[in-house]
Amino acid sequence: MQELNYNNLDQCEAFDRLRRLFPASPKPGAGLGETAAELNPRRALERDLNAGGGLRFNFAARGVSAEALDLLFRLAEEQQAEKKYRSLLSGEIMNTGENRMVLHHLSRGQVLADKPVLAGGRDLGAFYRGERERFSLFARRVREGEIRGSTGKPFKTVVQIGIGGSDLGPRALYLALRGWAEAEGITGPEARFLSNVDPDDAAEVLAGLNPEECLFILVSKSGTTQETLTNHALVVQRLQEGGIPGLDPRGHMVAVTSQTSPLAASSDFLDSFFMDDYIGGRYSSTSAVGGLVLSLAFGPETFEEVLAGAHEGDLLALEPAEQNAALTDALLGVFDINIRGLGTSAILPYSQALIRFPAHLQQLDMESNGKQVNRRGEPIGYSTGPVILGEPGTNGQHSFYQLLHQGTGVVPLQFIGFSRSQRGRDRSLDGATSQEKLNANLAAQIVALALGQKSDNPNKNFPGGRPSSLLYGDRLTPRTLGSLLAHFENKVMFQGFLWNLNSFDQEGVQLGKVLTGKVLAGRSQSPSPGDNREALLKFYAGLLGL
Amino acid sequence: MQELNYNNLDQCEAFDRLRRLFPASPKPGAGLGETAAELNPRRALERDLNAGGGLRFNFAARGVSAEALDLLFRLAEEQQAEKKYRSLLSGEIMNTGENRMVLHHLSRGQVLADKPVLAGGRDLGAFYRGERERFSLFARRVREGEIRGSTGKPFKTVVQIGIGGSDLGPRALYLALRGWAEAEGITGPEARFLSNVDPDDAAEVLAGLNPEECLFILVSKSGTTQETLTNHALVVQRLQEGGIPGLDPRGHMVAVTSQTSPLAASSDFLDSFFMDDYIGGRYSSTSAVGGLVLSLAFGPETFEEVLAGAHEGDLLALEPAEQNAALTDALLGVFDINIRGLGTSAILPYSQALIRFPAHLQQLDMESNGKQVNRRGEPIGYSTGPVILGEPGTNGQHSFYQLLHQGTGVVPLQFIGFSRSQRGRDRSLDGATSQEKLNANLAAQIVALALGQKSDNPNKNFPGGRPSSLLYGDRLTPRTLGSLLAHFENKVMFQGFLWNLNSFDQEGVQLGKVLTGKVLAGRSQSPSPGDNREALLKFYAGLLGL
Repeated sequence: MQELNYNNLDQCEAFDRLRRLFPASPKPGAGLGETAAELNPRRALERDLNAGGGLRFNFAARGVSAEALDLLFRLAEEQQAEKKYRSLLSGEIMNTGENRMVLHHLSRGQVLADKPVLAGGRDLGAFYRGERERFSLFARRVREGEIRGSTGKPFKTVVQIGIGGSDLGPRALYLALRGWAEAEGITGPEARFLSNVDPDDAAEVLAGLNPEECLFILVSKSGTTQETLTNHALVVQRLQEGGIPGLDPRGHMVAVTSQTSPLAASSDFLDSFFMDDYIGGRYSSTSAVGGLVLSLAFGPETFEEVLAGAHEGDLLALEPAEQNAALTDALLGVFDINIRGLGTSAILPYSQALIRFPAHLQQLDMESNGKQVNRRGEPIGYSTGPVILGEPGTNGQHSFYQLLHQGTGVVPLQFIGFSRSQRGRDRSLDGATSQEKLNANLAAQIVALALGQKSDNPNKNFPGGRPSSLLYGDRLTPRTLGSLLAHFENKVMFQGFLWNLNSFDQEGVQLGKVLTGKVLAGRSQSPSPGDNREALLKFYAGLLGL
Repeated sequence: MQELNYNNLDQCEAFDRLRRLFPASPKPGAGLGETAAELNPRRALERDLNAGGGLRFNFAARGVSAEALDLLFRLAEEQQAEKKYRSLLSGEIMNTGENRMVLHHLSRGQVLADKPVLAGGRDLGAFYRGERERFSLFARRVREGEIRGSTGKPFKTVVQIGIGGSDLGPRALYLALRGWAEAEGITGPEARFLSNVDPDDAAEVLAGLNPEECLFILVSKSGTTQETLTNHALVVQRLQEGGIPGLDPRGHMVAVTSQTSPLAASSDFLDSFFMDDYIGGRYSSTSAVGGLVLSLAFGPETFEEVLAGAHEGDLLALEPAEQNAALTDALLGVFDINIRGLGTSAILPYSQALIRFPAHLQQLDMESNGKQVNRRGEPIGYSTGPVILGEPGTNGQHSFYQLLHQGTGVVPLQFIGFSRSQRGRDRSLDGATSQEKLNANLAAQIVALALGQKSDNPNKNFPGGRPSSLLYGDRLTPRTLGSLLAHFENKVMFQGFLWNLNSFDQEGVQLGKVLTGKVLAGRSQSPSPGDNREALLKFYAGLLGL
């Protein structure tokens, strides 16, 4: 492997030229002038890339001139985006802060076919495949009624107990596939997700469940996550105290964890499935973390399709920048953030099935790139990861789109849409089906935001020049969903390379954990004299009844 | 009523002084230095205001110096915030763009006791009360089984069909009260919400319903909302084609609309309840729009408690700035946005029951104040309403908090917490209950964000100076929820006064509607030659299968 350069963004020549050629953020209330001038159907047809799994990425309305785009591609070259991706795939230590490899791509297949990744002589691709075979078999046996609860009843509900990456991704994917599964006649246990340590969350999620028919999946890589262990203990207590003769909690509980976690050796589980430190929580949807619950609910074949779609996206991410949807998206984001000064981005799926997908991307992006140091741990002087928000359209149109059209700030937008609904159960009213209305709204929004509309009444004036891109496909299937997931994962990875930061650790969550421990330990003590931090912890805890 | 001044923010002396005294946004990665220096328990105790309904607002960790706070209070005086609120309550035309009064406060009570609001000789307070009495009686009769479905079965499910303000607020309040109702032994029909025109939303919401036991509430003030009418027609078709002998759709459908809407005169409804143009969609949760569904699900007494809490908040909003939680919050937001240059804000409830409350506030705030013209319709040259996002804690901690702690941008935070859970079903594990862990996390986050922590390893360095405030109370009850709602409504209103804009119209949503109509009408036609807008609409519609 050749030596790679790790330069900060502001050391790049292409970035310097971009900064000199293009003005910073527009004035409050103004749009980005170039969009309207440059956007037309011919250009729109050209700026359209394959994103895998039947998904395409159209970025014509992002409002970037040909000159800027060319410099962005040069920036990708300077920052060795593709080479760094290859390096990551080969098992280099890309998570420098934690001294770890980054191998979530390997959970869905070998992208560099000739290069197995070894750790201590062990083939990790084979390890992930082996675990997948084990949990696929387990899921199949549950679905076929071979594995049953401790009182002999088949499992009708699966409850995943996990938080953060063990919750948001798997939940988003599960919700995204329910309508598809229904239309395809695929049945299986209902899945629920228990995440928050708030006891009202547990009460809500567990309401109405028959413990005899319920399988719980405890997901914690470290085996030490406070919320997850607390909710696990609560569930076990419930099962024990339910007074159901013969019910053994161990027959209703499986674990997804790392082989080094305290849970791995426990005899409290019907079975355990493993991942490792090379797959970060927010990247773990395609490992056992997402795979077991999805395989239980929809069958292992469905999960394999998700993996195939993601793998297709991963392969496309090796393409040259000009044909690489994820890298192009990453570059456009850097242009928005570092040239235009726009640090917020909205994800707007015109598909109700993607209701929790923006929440997953919020974690994926903000936890990966919300960083202030480069990969060597040195402070950097430019903006990094954006704030992410989003809700499905058309709902959002009747909510926060007012600001998107006429606010004083500009928010770059990422639309997602599909020609067909998942279920195809639709009716025509006033000459159009619901799906046609949905997509007419989406097309209208892209054009309204980009071109705006002049009016003599400034209150009815739309400045336009509000950039957006569109990820689109025929229908949201498991394969398309896998590619959609990979697109964003790879976009985030490429942005990390461009910013020269480590997208794979999360030191920013540690201080809160330490101080939480202090609050709980200090409840019966007075704060140390002169310790303002302890005194404040005590004060706020007191406001909250502690 | 005395003549009011309507000056832009940048014409105010206090604003000018603030701008000169305090530096603009910090460098990427830096916090706001003053927070750590000024935050201590004594100050934290002083900066604590009554927000009504048992709720208090603590803003010590917002990191604003005494001098800045004093200037902000002067700004409120200069912009006549309290006087404008009184003027609004008195029925002045505060929605200038649409030439309407703004009367959502009146839906929960007469704030200025001696001043009934008249329109054409009609007492509007009496009108709202009258409708409330009518829908309360209707809800009571449904709950007691006096009003039943057309085949004689009691209603077990209520489905609200509405979008935007007819969905987000009522849904957020319904979800916020379920746990409380369960704990109090209050039973009633389950509520569901159908909003999106995506046909997969309808399929999901209507799945498993028994039409005989189902009551639908069609909510559209204008009676012309595309999504809502489409979903209504879809539901009626389903009911008609269900093949249930004797089932009459009209016996399962009520309307909430304005008296001038086409729906008002329709005979397709079991009953209709009215609001009017003086209550905007996003402010309509305390009118029949939220009141009917909440009264059906939890009883009219519960809804009355929500109103009482909101009314208490409305009364407190008349207090001088120094004792006025909503106005103080509004001023702190203006400081963040216009002095510090921080245009994004996160709402972080440590209460799973408030899962959809941030989505409601996203609409409330962004649709109200995402404006680029002042109330006279003149362009303004400063930033207005923020971008809002949010998820419940502790979930968010395992997701996007990395960026909040260590991102290069600073995001002001609004925490919400309660001493007790709603249900009180809790267990102690490792010496602390789940609720205690939840609140220990919240206290720890406030302190960690404000004070940060120095480390020789920049990757483990927390700059601190990340501002937050805390709305807190004993338990999330209907009354507390009402005050919480009013707090944010009034904060948004006061910010509109400070920015000199009209928070009560939404012209920004109109262009999309017009272009959607063009797409649907133009499906079978070629675009007019030379019309780039039409050609682009056609192009994007084509990508989406239209």
